[in-house]
Amino acid sequence: MPRYPSPRTMAGLLRSADWIGTVSFAYSGSLLAAAAGMDAFGSCVVGCITAVGGGTVRDLLIGNAPVFWMQEVEYLAMSIVAALAAFISLPAGGLAEDGLVLRWTDHLGVAAFAVIGAQNGLRRNLAPLICVVCAIFTATFGGLTRDVLVNRPVYATCAAATGAVYLGMRALGAKPAMRIAAAVLFGTLLRELATVNQWRLPTAIDDAQRTHVDL
Amino acid sequence: MPRYPSPRTMAGLLRSADWIGTVSFAYSGSLLAAAAGMDAFGSCVVGCITAVGGGTVRDLLIGNAPVFWMQEVEYLAMSIVAALAAFISLPAGGLAEDGLVLRWTDHLGVAAFAVIGAQNGLRRNLAPLICVVCAIFTATFGGLTRDVLVNRPVYATCAAATGAVYLGMRALGAKPAMRIAAAVLFGTLLRELATVNQWRLPTAIDDAQRTHVDL
Amino acid sequence: MPRYPSPRTMAGLLRSADWIGTVSFAYSGSLLAAAAGMDAFGSCVVGCITAVGGGTVRDLLIGNAPVFWMQEVEYLAMSIVAALAAFISLPAGGLAEDGLVLRWTDHLGVAAFAVIGAQNGLRRNLAPLICVVCAIFTATFGGLTRDVLVNRPVYATCAAATGAVYLGMRALGAKPAMRIAAAVLFGTLLRELATVNQWRLPTAIDDAQRTHVDL
Repeated sequence: MPRYPSPRTMAGLLRSADWIGTVSFAYSGSLLAAAAGMDAFGSCVVGCITAVGGGTVRDLLIGNAPVFWMQEVEYLAMSIVAALAAFISLPAGGLAEDGLVLRWTDHLGVAAFAVIGAQNGLRRNLAPLICVVCAIFTATFGGLTRDVLVNRPVYATCAAATGAVYLGMRALGAKPAMRIAAAVLFGTLLRELATVNQWRLPTAIDDAQRTHVDL
Repeated sequence: MPRYPSPRTMAGLLRSADWIGTVSFAYSGSLLAAAAGMDAFGSCVVGCITAVGGGTVRDLLIGNAPVFWMQEVEYLAMSIVAALAAFISLPAGGLAEDGLVLRWTDHLGVAAFAVIGAQNGLRRNLAPLICVVCAIFTATFGGLTRDVLVNRPVYATCAAATGAVYLGMRALGAKPAMRIAAAVLFGTLLRELATVNQWRLPTAIDDAQRTHVDL
Repeated sequence: MPRYPSPRTMAGLLRSADWIGTVSFAYSGSLLAAAAGMDAFGSCVVGCITAVGGGTVRDLLIGNAPVFWMQEVEYLAMSIVAALAAFISLPAGGLAEDGLVLRWTDHLGVAAFAVIGAQNGLRRNLAPLICVVCAIFTATFGGLTRDVLVNRPVYATCAAATGAVYLGMRALGAKPAMRIAAAVLFGTLLRELATVNQWRLPTAIDDAQRTHVDL
């Protein structure tokens, strides 16, 4: 993947989707923190964790340190700018957290993060199952911070499926550009469908039977 | 330690105890999560964190990455299977979380994890105090996830004692098979005694005097 | 920086401040945990996390493992002793958590940690922004454990400013002894001013408007 976004190759487009997702995650994370009354610094931290937290956990687990944003500083820089923009724009309105723009850039980001996570696993020669786990961590761990804040379901299953599609197409011999495009498109649309239809995985017991536990 | 369990050597038996502990941790972690109303994916995640979380933290701190379950995939695989089994068996009853089977396999697992953690520290030439800390992390960090959920006391002291027994016998010149057997047996029984007798370390103040803090 | 404190060089003095901060953090962390009713082991753990947690996170992110206290065992040893001292002294009174001694040693520790964090980043050839982030992590992450316990504001901004002063003076060509002294002095006093005057960064909205979120 080239270091900077480019419309000329599929890898360059993947980097573009990665940047869009990073900015979108930082913006929405900071927005929620600011709306909850956190100060500028705290909102910025929550925004940055939302944006780069997933890739950081992945890098730690696979042994890629200094972690990616310490080497590719542009990720932290764009996260800080987006987080501050969200903080400043909140009193004036800003983008709605569940509006069209943030929702779709969020979907796109999760899909791109999942594909990049799976690629990271492959580059380390890790087993397919572990590559899917890398996809899950990269795509969902940062957003956890934000989603736990607002008690929103975490679509980890979408990230797992996106990583699996990428790995499956690779196993079937699909070219890199093809499998990147297909997996990102699949992941983006799947997440919109899951959101709109409020898909939930089954629970083992009814709500009435659940033990009282502070999760 | 051989990669797969074997009844022929003490190291092979230690690996067996390690697998039994891993499966037991994954099962009980998932069981509690499922009983609290989490979906299949969430229960699976809690089960896996319970099973491999301790070794993961140890690997990160000592610089062993990719972490163990990314290289020995069987650990993650057996954790997922055990976690799903717990999720599926919950409505039908399944093993009781505080029943005889899960309690003793849990004790055995904690003891085995502590010995393996101490061994990891020794392999990195770390000081005895740090090896004991490795034992504590390996044995208790994963279970924390589960134990915090149900407000159960964490027997970190048992893990520390188990690691110390292993290191002490090694310093006294005991053979590997001997010190593994003694430490695992000691740790397993100590934890049962602590559970049955509800042993607690002293607190500095009475319950009445404690400051109100959400721990 | 020499491994042990020394009054003869500025680097030796920085190490002294580092030790003072470590002991102070461990003491105050353990004190709060003990006052909240935790047992000796738990208080010790909270004290140690408060003391070495920040440097641990920094080491993990920059890829310095085994982490510092696994190699320089004296840090963990002094943390354990200080934490146990706090636990034991609590019923008898002990140092007041917000008294003069603990407040100033805390300030000094945060300033020294921030400078050392920035130095760690420089040694890895990381960008200035990332070095400031290293300063923030080193200085504040451990204290978070303690400060979240008592709902106390976290002065991350002071740590960021201290790291920035160190880096700025280095960029301007100031000698090592000069920039260490200036940054530590600046950070120590800034934090006292922030505490006394209850400085707060602005929030985006009024308290009345904040969304209800359990942060």
